[in-house]
Amino acid sequence: MATGDLPPAEAAAAVKEEEEDLIEIVEEGSGRLDISRYVDHVRDLSAGAIATFEGTTRDHFAGRRVVELRYEAYAAMARRRLAGILREARSRHTLRRLAVAHRLGPVPAGEASVFVAASATHRADAMEACRYVIDELKASVPIWKKEVYDDGEVWKENREFLDRLSGDGSAPAPAAKAGGCCGSKVRVQEA
Amino acid sequence: MATGDLPPAEAAAAVKEEEEDLIEIVEEGSGRLDISRYVDHVRDLSAGAIATFEGTTRDHFAGRRVVELRYEAYAAMARRRLAGILREARSRHTLRRLAVAHRLGPVPAGEASVFVAASATHRADAMEACRYVIDELKASVPIWKKEVYDDGEVWKENREFLDRLSGDGSAPAPAAKAGGCCGSKVRVQEA
Repeated sequence: MATGDLPPAEAAAAVKEEEEDLIEIVEEGSGRLDISRYVDHVRDLSAGAIATFEGTTRDHFAGRRVVELRYEAYAAMARRRLAGILREARSRHTLRRLAVAHRLGPVPAGEASVFVAASATHRADAMEACRYVIDELKASVPIWKKEVYDDGEVWKENREFLDRLSGDGSAPAPAAKAGGCCGSKVRVQEA
Repeated sequence: MATGDLPPAEAAAAVKEEEEDLIEIVEEGSGRLDISRYVDHVRDLSAGAIATFEGTTRDHFAGRRVVELRYEAYAAMARRRLAGILREARSRHTLRRLAVAHRLGPVPAGEASVFVAASATHRADAMEACRYVIDELKASVPIWKKEVYDDGEVWKENREFLDRLSGDGSAPAPAAKAGGCCGSKVRVQEA
């Protein structure tokens, strides 16, 4: 729901809520995601529920040992698209506060690359909004991933991102063309 | 899936996985839930996803100011039922590690009464298992809640717990009979 559809008082409240949402793109060299800060951001005495999702680098992919993932983004557009996703989450669910963060550059095995937190009065709203935000982020935010193995590296693209591009066009064009497929990921370029 | 249905090696692995799950009933007077410990418990280098749910005491309910919630449990049966829920979650999803904790006694506004964490290779498994565990906990674990307002107090029961009792009978009988209804909660006894 766009704030333009609301009476002035409710529109002002909606804008205020959006201003309270936290969106962070952590540039390369700025260290780990500060997860406790994102969770604290969504804490609210009127919320009965907090749902979170953390995406981490796993140490294996398709039988190869992963040393790190490396993320690059078109940061200004990523931030704009994330703000759009949080607005959409608010239009679908009754929420208190939201936070989303993505780390860029190398992310070693075991460390977090992305984090989402949502608080709400009721648990269904918090959990469904958290799911919505991470699913939409993967499908439509211009962030690209390189998997660095102990024996080589490869750029990957989320299948859902490519599917979306061939569909409703709500996401920007990727930096490289799709090739073969690896699970839910698509190999876009052998480095 | 019961481990009896599995070949010996897989059954042994399943038992090992269950042994790695954390179940904690925090008795009255033992302080807050140690949330970072539960999240650390499910961290695993082979997991790419961690989903969590935190249920907190909110400061208002139906227009009245809530000072604290107070939880009581039939602890041995609660622990057994929680173990069953985690087994069921493992049979439905491909998971790495699970943790669930519930605090008993008074829980002041803003503090956590219940926490669930699930890790998995893929995010859908982690998020859906987390949702399954908290939904089943609310519907079938013998834990009772008293809402303490600034002008009185009242025992509450989850509607889903009562619905379940009138259905498949997988949960034990509650300590008190249901009366009127307040949102998704049912007033069971005015104190």
